[in-house]
Amino acid sequence: MKLFSFWRSLATFRVRAALNYKGLVPDEVIDINLMKGDQRDAKFRAINPMMAIPALIDGKGPPLFESLAIMEYLDEIHPHPPLLPTDPKARARVRGLAQIVACDSHPLTVPRVRNYLERELKLDEETREKWCRHWVSEALGALEQHLTPENGSGTYCQGDQLTLADICVAGQAVGAMYFKVDMGAFPRVSRIVEATWKNDAIGRAHPMKQPGAPAKV
Amino acid sequence: MKLFSFWRSLATFRVRAALNYKGLVPDEVIDINLMKGDQRDAKFRAINPMMAIPALIDGKGPPLFESLAIMEYLDEIHPHPPLLPTDPKARARVRGLAQIVACDSHPLTVPRVRNYLERELKLDEETREKWCRHWVSEALGALEQHLTPENGSGTYCQGDQLTLADICVAGQAVGAMYFKVDMGAFPRVSRIVEATWKNDAIGRAHPMKQPGAPAKV
Repeated sequence: MKLFSFWRSLATFRVRAALNYKGLVPDEVIDINLMKGDQRDAKFRAINPMMAIPALIDGKGPPLFESLAIMEYLDEIHPHPPLLPTDPKARARVRGLAQIVACDSHPLTVPRVRNYLERELKLDEETREKWCRHWVSEALGALEQHLTPENGSGTYCQGDQLTLADICVAGQAVGAMYFKVDMGAFPRVSRIVEATWKNDAIGRAHPMKQPGAPAKV
Repeated sequence: MKLFSFWRSLATFRVRAALNYKGLVPDEVIDINLMKGDQRDAKFRAINPMMAIPALIDGKGPPLFESLAIMEYLDEIHPHPPLLPTDPKARARVRGLAQIVACDSHPLTVPRVRNYLERELKLDEETREKWCRHWVSEALGALEQHLTPENGSGTYCQGDQLTLADICVAGQAVGAMYFKVDMGAFPRVSRIVEATWKNDAIGRAHPMKQPGAPAKV
């Protein structure tokens, strides 16, 4: 497997965490520097026309794209340990929680959007940071309401089994750190994130522990 | 089943199309008027803390949320006709194409984002429309590169079987209509969208054919 990756990418973190959790080690990790715009190079554009990471090539390919799709793929080809529960409503809840992060929040703070805010809309840094904090916080607020014992949360988002929702929520907390969102307002989310990082496979996948990451953001 | 719906919502269209395709008829369709802000009422917020539609209650609940999660749920409880292929790499491609729409594009043009552009950033209508057109077009451009026979597309996104990717891409074309994006630059997408609407179950789910929809937008 070849993984196209960048230390800071929260979508790549999800796939890296899933690979670690499954005990899968890519043969090659190819750095796509999002700060330098490597994702827009013709060479990478041929891999992923959306010009975003992660992308994963398994065997002869073709390249797989979109983090949630890749996580589901890994769960299908390597079912153990599972990243989804077995009950259909529980699976829907796990996917829904993951999508609050991956659909409703994260896409609003990715480099192409921050670039548009800066270059097209000429917004100053404070306004851009406020934008990012707003969308990160909105999703954290929704997650905080979801992650109750009454709704089925336990040690993790869904009971006591780690799922792809926990990986997405842990990434959301890294986003909160990037954009200086105070997690104090989200105690249930924080507790689950803390439990998730304690899992060594997920902890090793943390963006700040990757090659190229700075000592702090 | 109870479906929380609004004629204009592209995310609700996806679920409505999936229900129709499976031959499932909700016992009740509850209108959440996104133009009037019904999604922010306390009553609906208790159903979906993210204050977004669709939401679906099947039997005793709990409410299911996020359109892709609901579509996967419907595919799991009613596997025929399927909304995903069987091969893991084909499934990943279908989910990835769906997520280009549902993660990378649509979340940037939903009411809460358009409201923020207007009320917080004080952007004029032309700038807001340009924003929507930009993100709709970016995803259409990526889809256009993906949807080749070499990549596995046929009558539909993935071969000749309708999948959840086709439903998402058809919804993307409705978004292009809302925001006056010229589809002429996307002939492969257009051809697949046309084939998708020909399926009666999907055609009946079209936003413009729902109660409350205007004669044109």
